[in-house]
Amino acid sequence: MKIQLALDRLEIADAIQITRMVEDSIDWIEVGTSLIKEFGMASVRELKQAFPAKTIVADMKTIDNARYEFEMAFRSGADVATVMGVSPLVTIDICMEVAARFNKKVMFDLLNTSEDQVRELMNYRDAIFCAHVSKDEQEESGERNKGTKNGALFTENEVQVAAAGGITIESLAALRKSLNPSVVIVGSAITKASNPTQAAARLKQAVLKGE
Amino acid sequence: MKIQLALDRLEIADAIQITRMVEDSIDWIEVGTSLIKEFGMASVRELKQAFPAKTIVADMKTIDNARYEFEMAFRSGADVATVMGVSPLVTIDICMEVAARFNKKVMFDLLNTSEDQVRELMNYRDAIFCAHVSKDEQEESGERNKGTKNGALFTENEVQVAAAGGITIESLAALRKSLNPSVVIVGSAITKASNPTQAAARLKQAVLKGE
Repeated sequence: MKIQLALDRLEIADAIQITRMVEDSIDWIEVGTSLIKEFGMASVRELKQAFPAKTIVADMKTIDNARYEFEMAFRSGADVATVMGVSPLVTIDICMEVAARFNKKVMFDLLNTSEDQVRELMNYRDAIFCAHVSKDEQEESGERNKGTKNGALFTENEVQVAAAGGITIESLAALRKSLNPSVVIVGSAITKASNPTQAAARLKQAVLKGE
Repeated sequence: MKIQLALDRLEIADAIQITRMVEDSIDWIEVGTSLIKEFGMASVRELKQAFPAKTIVADMKTIDNARYEFEMAFRSGADVATVMGVSPLVTIDICMEVAARFNKKVMFDLLNTSEDQVRELMNYRDAIFCAHVSKDEQEESGERNKGTKNGALFTENEVQVAAAGGITIESLAALRKSLNPSVVIVGSAITKASNPTQAAARLKQAVLKGE
């Protein structure tokens, strides 16, 4: 199981600094949508430049104009880019095509998708399926990703799963049971910890021990 | 009926230059999602600085992290910001709250919304409802906004309507009949015209004449 560090609501320099503190414990680096909308592709370029050996996920949250946005992300150094699962299927098709051409990966952000939409997306076997409880749902409704939704669908289709949304060391065991994600996406549990290096190291240990 | 010029797939300097050529004929300036993701909030700031008297629409396409994104857009000079109609309702609520606090406007991008979702959104009377055929749907499937979907729903609820997606002088009359939008959003029919000044002036004339 890989740990994807989500960088949001930060200046680029601070995002680099915090990643530097935890880089031994994390696998993938997510340039959050808030960085992309605030600073543009400079955010992706600078993170890739600072951590060339890491997998960079550009959280583009594409929902239209897929060719332009995905080519832009990959050319800026992203190894994975996200598209919304609620997009028209033609948009998903373009993302898959561009990623294949660049030999990169697509992550579906399943935020607010219906079960029918998720079933349709199962046809795209090369994508990573990100089960996502949004920041707004967390902060306003107190929801957390417990991984209950769509778990069976993912398992029976043997797709690669990522999980995001308020994940902590404490919620890891339940999440593993219900979703068995190959990527856990963790933001504030690391970036807002009083000691990010220690928080990331502990999370890494829990992942390695299979807790 | 107002004309909103959509600026996409352009450098900021070129976007300003083309807007300068047509500013007498257009009412609102949309900083497209592609500019925001490529250049960040600098795109919104520079367009507002260049055209302080115009209404600036930041096509944020927010779907999460609404407070952060909307405050960022309004502080950068946007007068209107967009949120996806397919977002969780908690996200929509936050957008409305932030816009009210800043005395600004919210535009709902109805791309790929179900009829049920549109009905729920009708409760937000202060928003502008943008009926949107996406770039990907246009370019890959040849779709155009003919305004047939949701037209009756908008009329009976008396909400403010915008229309986007492949709109030209030729399609204006049909669109007026079916959707009666108060804002028509036009991008490439102006920005990619051989003579943008003339194309915008003709569109303005057609709008004034009620064609």
